[in-house]
This record gives sequence, C-alpha cells and structure tokens, in this order.
Amino acid sequence: MLQQLTIIAPGLLGASLGMAAKHLGLVQRVHVWARRIETRLECEAQPWCDAVFAEPAEAADGADLVVICTPVGEIARYAAMLAPRLRPGAVVTDVGSTKGLLCREAHASMPEGVAFVGSHPMAGSEKTGLANAQADLFRERACLVTPLPQTPQPAVETVCRFWRGLDMEVTTMSPDRHDEIVAHISHVPHLLASALCSMLAQQDPGTWQAFAGNGLRDTTRIAAGSPTLWRDIVEQNRDEVLRTLSSFEDELALLRSSIANRDWPSVRHLLERGKHYRDLLA
Amino acid sequence: MLQQLTIIAPGLLGASLGMAAKHLGLVQRVHVWARRIETRLECEAQPWCDAVFAEPAEAADGADLVVICTPVGEIARYAAMLAPRLRPGAVVTDVGSTKGLLCREAHASMPEGVAFVGSHPMAGSEKTGLANAQADLFRERACLVTPLPQTPQPAVETVCRFWRGLDMEVTTMSPDRHDEIVAHISHVPHLLASALCSMLAQQDPGTWQAFAGNGLRDTTRIAAGSPTLWRDIVEQNRDEVLRTLSSFEDELALLRSSIANRDWPSVRHLLERGKHYRDLLA
Repeated sequence: MLQQLTIIAPGLLGASLGMAAKHLGLVQRVHVWARRIETRLECEAQPWCDAVFAEPAEAADGADLVVICTPVGEIARYAAMLAPRLRPGAVVTDVGSTKGLLCREAHASMPEGVAFVGSHPMAGSEKTGLANAQADLFRERACLVTPLPQTPQPAVETVCRFWRGLDMEVTTMSPDRHDEIVAHISHVPHLLASALCSMLAQQDPGTWQAFAGNGLRDTTRIAAGSPTLWRDIVEQNRDEVLRTLSSFEDELALLRSSIANRDWPSVRHLLERGKHYRDLLA
Repeated sequence: MLQQLTIIAPGLLGASLGMAAKHLGLVQRVHVWARRIETRLECEAQPWCDAVFAEPAEAADGADLVVICTPVGEIARYAAMLAPRLRPGAVVTDVGSTKGLLCREAHASMPEGVAFVGSHPMAGSEKTGLANAQADLFRERACLVTPLPQTPQPAVETVCRFWRGLDMEVTTMSPDRHDEIVAHISHVPHLLASALCSMLAQQDPGTWQAFAGNGLRDTTRIAAGSPTLWRDIVEQNRDEVLRTLSSFEDELALLRSSIANRDWPSVRHLLERGKHYRDLLA
C-alpha cells in the first residue's frame, strides 16, 4: 500500500482515480492540488480526499506517487514545478494521451532519485469534471505505461502495480511506440472526422443535415470533442500524426484512382480489407 | 387508396413497406416477386401479402404502383424487364441509394403512359432480410423523391403521397442533386471509414486493436457494411463520389500542411468549424 498519492488537477480522470484508489485500499492518504478554488472546496467535501493544497509543490510534498492529470500540453511544465519538493524514491506519472515529447521533458526535470514514468490509461467519458467521477472508470480498460530506456525498473513496477490495482490491463512500451499506435487508432481517426465535418460545413447549404443518417452521426461523433484539447494532442504528437496522415492519404488516393479508373475489383478489395479489420474490432 | 401495389424483391425495405402499406390502409392488394423460392414461400405466409409470383413481369401486371427493391445496380434492369406488362397510368419507383444514372435509364425504358419516379427512403437497419421487416421502419424518416424534368406531375404526386402515407418526410429534388448530397453525407463518409480500416489493416501488427476505444469503433462502424452493396453504390454514383472525395482530400491536405507548418491557430480553426457542424447534427 502507498502511503501518499498526490493528484495534480482532479478532473474526471484524477478524481475517479483518487476515489478508486482509496476505495480499493491502494493508498493511505490522497492529497490533491486544484487550480480553481471551487474545485478545491469540492475536493474537501469528498470522502476519498485527505488534504487539499493551493500550491502544486505542497500537494506533492511527501508523496510516494504523483499523478499529473492536467491537459496534455501542461504535464511537463507541472512535472518541473513539483520537482524541487519531491522526496527521493518518489515516482511521478501522468494520464496524458501523448507520450514521447512530454516523457523526455519530464524525465529531464526530475531530481536525483525521483523517476517520471509516463502512463496513458485509456478510460474516459463524454462527461468531464470532478462531478462525474466514478470509481469503476478504469476497470478492465487498457493502460499503456511508457518508460524510457533509462527509467529505473522499480519505478516502472510501482506505476504498473498502481494501474493493475485499479483493475486495468497494463502494457509497457516505449513512448515513441505509444505515439505511433495512438496516432493510428485515435488521433488520425479524430482528425478525419473533424476534416469531414469541416468540409461538410463549407459544402452544405444548411439543408443536408436533415437527411443525415446514423452512419454520418457515428462516423463524426468524435468531431464534437474539445478543439483546445485536440489541438494540444496534435501539437504534442505532431510527427507521428503527420506520418499516419500520409499513410491515410496514400490509401485514399489509391481508392480514388481505382474509382476514377473504374477498377471495381480494386475498390471491392479495399472495401473487403476494411470490413475484415472492422469485423475484428467487434 | 391504391388497388394494387407490387413489390419487386422484398428484403428488409420491401417487406417492411408491404407490411406498413397494408397496415395503414394505403393499398387494397400487395403482389410480390422474389427471386428465391424460399423467400416466395415466406411471403405467402405473410398476412400483408396477397399474391406471390415467380416472374417479375407477372407480379407487376395490373399494378398502380411498383416499388423495385433490388440492389441498386439492378434497378434499371428490372424496370426494363417489367415495362412490357405495365398498364397505362401505372407508376414505378424504387428504394435505391443513388439516383441519377438509374432514373435516366429507367425513365427511358418505360412504355407510353407509364412513369418512373425515383425514390430514396432513408430508412434501414443493420439487420437485413424479410425476417426483420417492421411496419414502422419508415416512420418520421426522410424520403427523397427525384423526378426528371420530363416526369409527369401526377406520377410524382402518386409517389410522394405513398411515402407520406407511410409517415415519411418527403422532399423532392433532381436525381443529380440527390446524388451530390448523398455523396457528401453518406457515400464519402463510408469510403473514409473503409479507407481508414484498410490502412489500419496494413499498419497494425495485430496488437493495436486491444487499445482501440469507442472513438475508433464509432468512426469505423459503417466500414462493416457489405462490400458488394457499396461497390455498386460507388459505381452508380462515381462522378459525385469523385468530386466529393477531391473536396475532402483538399480539406485534409490543408489540415496536414497546417500541422506540418505548426500553424496551430489554423488547426484549431478547422477543429472548431468541424465541431460546430457536428454539434448541429445532434
């Protein structure tokens, strides 16, 4: 059992993990820092929260494990802010959707004897914020843990044990491998939905939406996500996103030229390969 | 009330509309042609079905209204097959997802005094076939009716009245306008989902699927559709699909170059325009 877990910025993910960790007996005390005073007052009223601080470094003081739950573009900055007050043996992790850039920056800012180990728990909900926190948010979901080659193994184990304690299915891989995978299965699919909606916004005279079926609704649902959040994710994972976008553009150009050439067997072949992959997703 | 409605190829749509038309008292008799003998036997057992035929032209004999429910690539061929047996004053329509090519072909094959008026009732389900027919499939869904300039107005009214009788919200427009709209809101979104899955099928070493979230599942759901059906739709609507694909490729190339140039305000602007459109879809 950890003595002290510190949660930096308890939104949906941070508050859910404080609640779950306490509920499952993984930690003795949960300390919290929140930027807004309203959130600090809400936290004080939570049974899973033992102490609330107005300064990030104070909340992190004495922690065994710190989980940074800020927007992805600010994680490395917060890691550097906490660094001076972390005790030797402490481990810092996060819940960000990108890993390469921030893991290298956060690693570089840690003091002697403190390790940063990136995490990406693949859990969430349309509903955001502390008020929607739920103890079973992480249960049976995937969590990717992304040590650098120089990350001490005991710190990696501390982080993996924590997520497994929340009933997550943990896989470790390099931060860059992580970023390649999520560019393919999350970031580029998001950008395609956004680009489709953005194109439709310019072509639709305002009457077509009445004819849209569930297919368009499903395909574009994620385009309703926060532009601020997704701008940050794309900035953080720029190189892999660009590489994956190029792969997709090649595939689409091939499909377009098959249609233009009336090469119907090739069109069908691509549709079948796509269906086969989708059927495996279940 | 129509005296005789003939349904050519009663799958999910055809059987549902026979059931609904009889249930709502829109027709006196429903005649049916089905290719497979098993389907003909099933139809004979349906309370909404008055007569079943082994030849399409026999089923159409004496009909006030014929609705052709075959796959989209075969509609014009069936219209030509029925033509010799249609009585003056009869009206023929269909339920195909594309309109321009087939409306022109079907119109040309009609005998004197018989009109073909294209329809696209925007209703359906993942479940296909007669066994899944339901009388309320069409209720409060959109239906696009697509006369040519030379189509007689009374025939257009017969078709519109029929779909309105099934509680559909009917809009008339030219076949080409229809094809432009559905290329944007249905066919190209489908191809993007297929191309994304086809690209992933080639990049994914087989382990990434375990990390896929609901975002990818939603975005790619339609890629599980029938390759045969969608190949036909794309062939029928080739020109509009190519035009719409080009618009999308331009939008995506713009997004990629904004990301490559680290022009984050432009990235954010596109994400916001997309979100705005998606939020309107509800």
